[in-house]
Amino acid sequence: MQDTQEPIQDVAHLGHVEILTPRPDESLHFFKEVMGLEETDRQGQSVYLRAWGDYDHCTLKLTEASHAGLGHVGWRAVSPQALDRRVKALAAVGQGQRWMDGDIGHGAAYQFTDPDGHPMEVYYESQKYLAPEEMKSRLFNQPQKYIARGAGVRRIDHVNLMCSHVPTNRQFLQDSLGFHLRELLQPEQDGTEEGAWLSVTPLVHDIAYTRDFTGSHGRLHHIAYWLDSREEVLRTADILSENDIFIEGGPAKHNITQAFYLYCYEPGSNRVEIYSSTYLIFAPDWEPVIWRKKERGRGVYWGGTLPESFKTYGTPVVPVDEANKKNIATVFDPA
Amino acid sequence: MQDTQEPIQDVAHLGHVEILTPRPDESLHFFKEVMGLEETDRQGQSVYLRAWGDYDHCTLKLTEASHAGLGHVGWRAVSPQALDRRVKALAAVGQGQRWMDGDIGHGAAYQFTDPDGHPMEVYYESQKYLAPEEMKSRLFNQPQKYIARGAGVRRIDHVNLMCSHVPTNRQFLQDSLGFHLRELLQPEQDGTEEGAWLSVTPLVHDIAYTRDFTGSHGRLHHIAYWLDSREEVLRTADILSENDIFIEGGPAKHNITQAFYLYCYEPGSNRVEIYSSTYLIFAPDWEPVIWRKKERGRGVYWGGTLPESFKTYGTPVVPVDEANKKNIATVFDPA
Amino acid sequence: MQDTQEPIQDVAHLGHVEILTPRPDESLHFFKEVMGLEETDRQGQSVYLRAWGDYDHCTLKLTEASHAGLGHVGWRAVSPQALDRRVKALAAVGQGQRWMDGDIGHGAAYQFTDPDGHPMEVYYESQKYLAPEEMKSRLFNQPQKYIARGAGVRRIDHVNLMCSHVPTNRQFLQDSLGFHLRELLQPEQDGTEEGAWLSVTPLVHDIAYTRDFTGSHGRLHHIAYWLDSREEVLRTADILSENDIFIEGGPAKHNITQAFYLYCYEPGSNRVEIYSSTYLIFAPDWEPVIWRKKERGRGVYWGGTLPESFKTYGTPVVPVDEANKKNIATVFDPA
Amino acid sequence: MQDTQEPIQDVAHLGHVEILTPRPDESLHFFKEVMGLEETDRQGQSVYLRAWGDYDHCTLKLTEASHAGLGHVGWRAVSPQALDRRVKALAAVGQGQRWMDGDIGHGAAYQFTDPDGHPMEVYYESQKYLAPEEMKSRLFNQPQKYIARGAGVRRIDHVNLMCSHVPTNRQFLQDSLGFHLRELLQPEQDGTEEGAWLSVTPLVHDIAYTRDFTGSHGRLHHIAYWLDSREEVLRTADILSENDIFIEGGPAKHNITQAFYLYCYEPGSNRVEIYSSTYLIFAPDWEPVIWRKKERGRGVYWGGTLPESFKTYGTPVVPVDEANKKNIATVFDPA
Repeated sequence: MQDTQEPIQDVAHLGHVEILTPRPDESLHFFKEVMGLEETDRQGQSVYLRAWGDYDHCTLKLTEASHAGLGHVGWRAVSPQALDRRVKALAAVGQGQRWMDGDIGHGAAYQFTDPDGHPMEVYYESQKYLAPEEMKSRLFNQPQKYIARGAGVRRIDHVNLMCSHVPTNRQFLQDSLGFHLRELLQPEQDGTEEGAWLSVTPLVHDIAYTRDFTGSHGRLHHIAYWLDSREEVLRTADILSENDIFIEGGPAKHNITQAFYLYCYEPGSNRVEIYSSTYLIFAPDWEPVIWRKKERGRGVYWGGTLPESFKTYGTPVVPVDEANKKNIATVFDPA
Repeated sequence: MQDTQEPIQDVAHLGHVEILTPRPDESLHFFKEVMGLEETDRQGQSVYLRAWGDYDHCTLKLTEASHAGLGHVGWRAVSPQALDRRVKALAAVGQGQRWMDGDIGHGAAYQFTDPDGHPMEVYYESQKYLAPEEMKSRLFNQPQKYIARGAGVRRIDHVNLMCSHVPTNRQFLQDSLGFHLRELLQPEQDGTEEGAWLSVTPLVHDIAYTRDFTGSHGRLHHIAYWLDSREEVLRTADILSENDIFIEGGPAKHNITQAFYLYCYEPGSNRVEIYSSTYLIFAPDWEPVIWRKKERGRGVYWGGTLPESFKTYGTPVVPVDEANKKNIATVFDPA
Repeated sequence: MQDTQEPIQDVAHLGHVEILTPRPDESLHFFKEVMGLEETDRQGQSVYLRAWGDYDHCTLKLTEASHAGLGHVGWRAVSPQALDRRVKALAAVGQGQRWMDGDIGHGAAYQFTDPDGHPMEVYYESQKYLAPEEMKSRLFNQPQKYIARGAGVRRIDHVNLMCSHVPTNRQFLQDSLGFHLRELLQPEQDGTEEGAWLSVTPLVHDIAYTRDFTGSHGRLHHIAYWLDSREEVLRTADILSENDIFIEGGPAKHNITQAFYLYCYEPGSNRVEIYSSTYLIFAPDWEPVIWRKKERGRGVYWGGTLPESFKTYGTPVVPVDEANKKNIATVFDPA
Repeated sequence: MQDTQEPIQDVAHLGHVEILTPRPDESLHFFKEVMGLEETDRQGQSVYLRAWGDYDHCTLKLTEASHAGLGHVGWRAVSPQALDRRVKALAAVGQGQRWMDGDIGHGAAYQFTDPDGHPMEVYYESQKYLAPEEMKSRLFNQPQKYIARGAGVRRIDHVNLMCSHVPTNRQFLQDSLGFHLRELLQPEQDGTEEGAWLSVTPLVHDIAYTRDFTGSHGRLHHIAYWLDSREEVLRTADILSENDIFIEGGPAKHNITQAFYLYCYEPGSNRVEIYSSTYLIFAPDWEPVIWRKKERGRGVYWGGTLPESFKTYGTPVVPVDEANKKNIATVFDPA
């Protein structure tokens, strides 16, 4: 029996994402009325939200800012000891920054950035959502009543970050936080990575990195919320259409992650994905799936392609000129 | 920051279940043509099967025997070291038995029983399924082509075992193998446990124990295969009906696990569940959900009750007399 | 070529149903917030409603009254000439009553009753729903924006009336209005009819008659609204549960009509069905499908039975004593 | 009350479509194994097929020929008298041809062509499908057991024919056969019609005409089979992908007809649509919905466009040169 190194199992799951919006009222209306999220708190320039199926007090922190983009990504550790180990590892590679006292929804958090500069934090103490009496579900294992408002998304699923160099960033998450590489987009034989999908859970990704063809740093590609069925994603497409929300791609099926997806832009300019019907990975020795251009043969599973904006549009929005688009031969499928 | 004991994270997932059937041909026809499983091997009195979405070589071992019931349950460890730790722990509590050399689909396994006598094993080395060329999917992250035959179930989900004393058995899994208790059925204030749902993964259960009201030992309540959508479960109900397979309960929605379910009896008498649309648990500090009779108010979520056979029918099938049914006041919802 | 009599094709479709409620506020809340209907008008003690996919100005007239039950059923004729022919035919058999000037949503209507005493009317002039600018859909063939509120039912489907003698009433509709008999429930060889499903459209029924085992007259069994998918019916079951609305039966699949159904009681006591996934009949020479007890073998398609209340509960609600229940051997499936 | 002319109600429904294939074996395999149709007969160079939910003996006649394309379209009349009236009307406008004795599945039929030259026939006597004992469904209102093979399509839905001049052909169907114009695609103010959707049933179309931008005559755009749910259309997309069948468009939602669609090419080159989730028209005075380019704003409902092949590809396949494509500014949505 081979004596392999044991896997790191210190990060439990994606806890929350903070996104920035220059149009806080319109963004809030979108997330509450169109997506169906619940507001749980407000503080300063921020509103704290969660989906009806999220067990934590907050999975989305929506903060007013001069421009759209990522505020930060919060990861929850499995135990105080695990948190301590990750803090040491982050500090050791020079990406650690400082401890902060906590925020609405969680306790003390250690702040760091990935190599591309996206702010992140890791913490253990977390506040569970406790529904007020009138919002308690008849299902005691459900954090609150089902919300039949707008899309009625169920829970946060993942975050996708754009970066200038995919390998550096994904390797950082693997080495310092114990993420598993699940799928990898390497269109050409030269090995250039255009996307990487990683997770600490059986979800095929808790986070993805996709190459930023504009050469920018620290941008957000999208955040994703989950629906239990493809039928509900289709229903959401109708709701978005009737609300004049731009649908950039889908509903359709990704090759990568196998997911049934839909991408739209919320009024503050951030891309939001509605996501369902992917697969789970339980094998402790999963071999990353490598996608090459010639093998894929087409952009998305059933045919068609994703729009070119998939390689250049992110938040903050930056001008796209011919120079920074020069490497975009074909638009692939960054799930 | 509290200095809690760190969780055991040594068992990766449910690997496979062996079930026994006195009607091997009819059972095989059911699993292949009605459920849509794929046969991957045969040896001795056994046929090895898996669903199109199972990454392992075998998730169901169907073995001819004089009576229906459970052969054994196989658990995969996360690493060789983890396997070693679990073997020591099992031996320490006197439930361990012996090493066996392995079987089709996996390497050396350590055999043990739970306190109720159900045979189990734990192993690390596992054989991935490799599709022959003509069965390779265009989705490289999918182990083979999608199977549009019968129900076309996607992957194994869980196993449910009947036992005479639920607390003893669930505590054994928690202490010796690191299972998390997710939900618990304690109808009365006296604390009697009628069911326990446990997992090592974010699935709400990889295994459940439900009380055997006949007082028997070592019986199988059911095995469950997963479908991605409730719509496919409904479609399966049509397929079962047209094939004259008895549907004991559902399609309907459980309170416990929130799952959309359907129970049927395969021709060899074993109960099989078609299962979908449950919830995932990512919190490392999940508090078990306790279900009591008075709070539930009804048997299953939308109304109605499960048939009384839920408390007494299992395999091997045993006679049910008035004496051993005396404690069955109302039939609850053992997901 | 046989010289058969040509079919009557004078009634176009079910136009609207008026139901009575002793709890007008709670009933209105149910139909608007839980079912997702839209209010289009008010007059006197009545509120006029329609589903987002109904092309007419009103399909449900909700009227305050001392007790629950049926107000009337409105049928639309295909042309003025067709209306004229039907009025003559109704008068000829003595069921006609009088012309009324019209109501919100339609023009002059001829009032009549069926033999059991249910008030009905037939008319031609009908007011189409015209959405205000802000409610216009991007789909010009849809009468208004899709409503993502509550169940979001799409359109009225049918009405089911209880009656003391099924053959008399269904034959009246066939002879005087040109309804086609689609399915018939005759449990025993003695030919007693317990239910009849009839339509003028390819829907398997625009109206059903089911036997009233209490011996009452003129009662309402239920009205039904349509959803496009079974998935949405399941979603509605969750919504009803969270709103503490009693679900009497389903979600499940009928034998008769093949429909996927769910029955609940609105706060005013009337039974409401959520209905989907039935079949269409285009054949001009359809032979009625006869259901007998011994051939059916079970109550509903996948197993289980409908509750006994199906044979006795209707509105107005009447006491059910042992005497009037004496003929209820088993509860069948009056879709 | 206005004294309008009464509508013609003589054609009952689309009975069957004959399509031609130069690859009869591959086409037959596609329709039986991938689509899930049932073979009911063979004669000469033809195989007769139907879906499990079709009540007629045959809805698809697949005939070997030197090239792909339309054989003929068969319409069933509501009565012998109605057939007689339609024969007279067809002869009166000079489109009638001759009586033929009948074919497998139907009796004497009167043959005619539409102005563009597509062969059609109208008949009354029709053979119902009678399932052999082992194929009888437990649902007596269903013509046979549900078929869980391949896509498992339920019933024929409609046919779409390409033609050089849409107004001439649709007006012919309206005047001579009593079809209702349901939707009309007139992109520009000049009134040029690019597509027309017509029906005799409440289906939004039993037949569509779309403009042939190559200037050819008598070509087939597609035939369509129905599935009950959008979920099953998505499942079909997976099945087609795994069978290497080219998906030209969808799964997505049409503006016109609101349908959820998918287009593929069967091995014989004919386009086939998988179709679901449209709306029904019951109003006897339906006003045709007119679609203009500027109002639509985009190609299909949720975004994206249909491929250009939609305006030029049909069967028989003809070369597409720059000259005959000159009027194709943007590809619209010919459902």
